[in-house]
Amino acid sequence: MRIGVIGTGVVGRTLGGKLVELGHEVKMGSREARNDKAVEWAQGAGENASEGSFADAAEFGELVINATAGHAALDALNAAGAGNLSGKVLVDVSNALDFAGGPPPIVGLAVDESLGERIQAAFPDARVVKALNTMNASLMVAPGTLGESTNVFVCGNDEAAKAQVLELLETFGWLSGDIIDLGDISASRGAELYVGLWVRLMGALGTPQFNIRVVRGD
Amino acid sequence: MRIGVIGTGVVGRTLGGKLVELGHEVKMGSREARNDKAVEWAQGAGENASEGSFADAAEFGELVINATAGHAALDALNAAGAGNLSGKVLVDVSNALDFAGGPPPIVGLAVDESLGERIQAAFPDARVVKALNTMNASLMVAPGTLGESTNVFVCGNDEAAKAQVLELLETFGWLSGDIIDLGDISASRGAELYVGLWVRLMGALGTPQFNIRVVRGD
Repeated sequence: MRIGVIGTGVVGRTLGGKLVELGHEVKMGSREARNDKAVEWAQGAGENASEGSFADAAEFGELVINATAGHAALDALNAAGAGNLSGKVLVDVSNALDFAGGPPPIVGLAVDESLGERIQAAFPDARVVKALNTMNASLMVAPGTLGESTNVFVCGNDEAAKAQVLELLETFGWLSGDIIDLGDISASRGAELYVGLWVRLMGALGTPQFNIRVVRGD
Repeated sequence: MRIGVIGTGVVGRTLGGKLVELGHEVKMGSREARNDKAVEWAQGAGENASEGSFADAAEFGELVINATAGHAALDALNAAGAGNLSGKVLVDVSNALDFAGGPPPIVGLAVDESLGERIQAAFPDARVVKALNTMNASLMVAPGTLGESTNVFVCGNDEAAKAQVLELLETFGWLSGDIIDLGDISASRGAELYVGLWVRLMGALGTPQFNIRVVRGD
C-alpha cells in the first residue's frame, strides 16, 4: 500500500519505518519538502521511503497518517489539502500537549472536544480513525516488547475504515482481541484525555515504556 | 477510626458499608440530616453506622471522604465547613460528570484543572488525597473480584496523608504494589481525565466491572 505520513517527529519516523519494513511505500510529509529530518529518515529507511511536502505525502498515500504534534495538526492537514485526503482513511495518532507551563504538559483540547473530532469536522470527506495515541511511539509498532498483552483503542465514524486500521494494527503485532473499538469519533475524547493520566504515570514510573491492559470482570 | 462520608450516592454507601464492616465508626452526611437514603443505609449497615448533615459527618470524622457528585462537591464541602475539615485527611473520590447532553457524560472540569486541586485550594487546611475515582464503586472495596491484579491511583500534597490512605486502601484489598502514587494534587487531572476513557470503555465493554492494569516494560 502507498501511505502518506504527515509529520517528521519520532512518531512519524517510527511508524514510517515500520510501514516500510512491512513492505509499504511511504512518503513522509513536512511543511516544506527536503526537510532535514524527513530526508535523513527517507535515506535510512530504504528504497520504499521518500519525502516531500505535506501535500505530496497526502496525495501519495492511499492511507494517510496524521503524526503531527496535536496543536499543529489542523494547519498541517490544511496544507496537505482536503482534496488529497478526500475518501481516504486518515489515521489520527496525534495528541494536544501544551508544555508552556513546563512538564508535565497540559493534555487535550477541552473536556468536550478532541483532535479526532475536530479533524473529522474539518475534513468531512476523510475517513478519520483515531488510534495509537495512548502510548509511546516504540510500543505502537512493537506491543510485544512489554511481555504481556495490553490494549490499543480505535474509534471513528466509518466502520470499513476502522476495519482497515485494525488490519494494519495486526501487522504491527497487535492481537485483534487486544484492539478495543471505542465507538464513533467522539470517543477520541476518551483516548485523548487518557493521556492526561499517561503523562503522570510516566512521571511516577520514570519511563514511557508502559501501556495499560483493561481487565474485565465476569 | 471515626470516618465521615460526605454524600449518599452509591459510592458513599458502598465505601461507608465497607468501612463499618472493617470496624470503623462511620457517619454519612447529606444536605439535611434524616435524608432517606442515609437513614436507610445507617439502619442496614450496623450499629457503627450513623447519619447526619454534611457538617455533622465532617465534624464526626477523623478522616473524611468526599463521595459527592463532582459538580456538587464544593457546595457540599462548604456546607460541611472548613473548620470541620481542618487538619484532616480528606479523601476525594469524586468525578465531574455532565450528563446534560445525554450519555456518555462529559468528564472533567477542564484540561488544566481538577476537582482534587479545586478542593485543596478551597480548603487549604485539609489534607486532600485523590483516590479511587477511576473505577466503579463495587471494585473500590473489592478489587480482587476481577481475578487479576489492577491498579488504583493516589495523589496529594501531604505525604503522611497519602500514606494513611494507602493503608486504608490495603484494608479494602488493594496490594500495596498495585497502588500508584501519581505525585502532588495536580495529578488529579490525570486521574479525573482518565474517566473520559472509562466512560467510553464502559460503553464498548457493556459493563462497569473493569479496571486497568499498568504494564511496564523493562
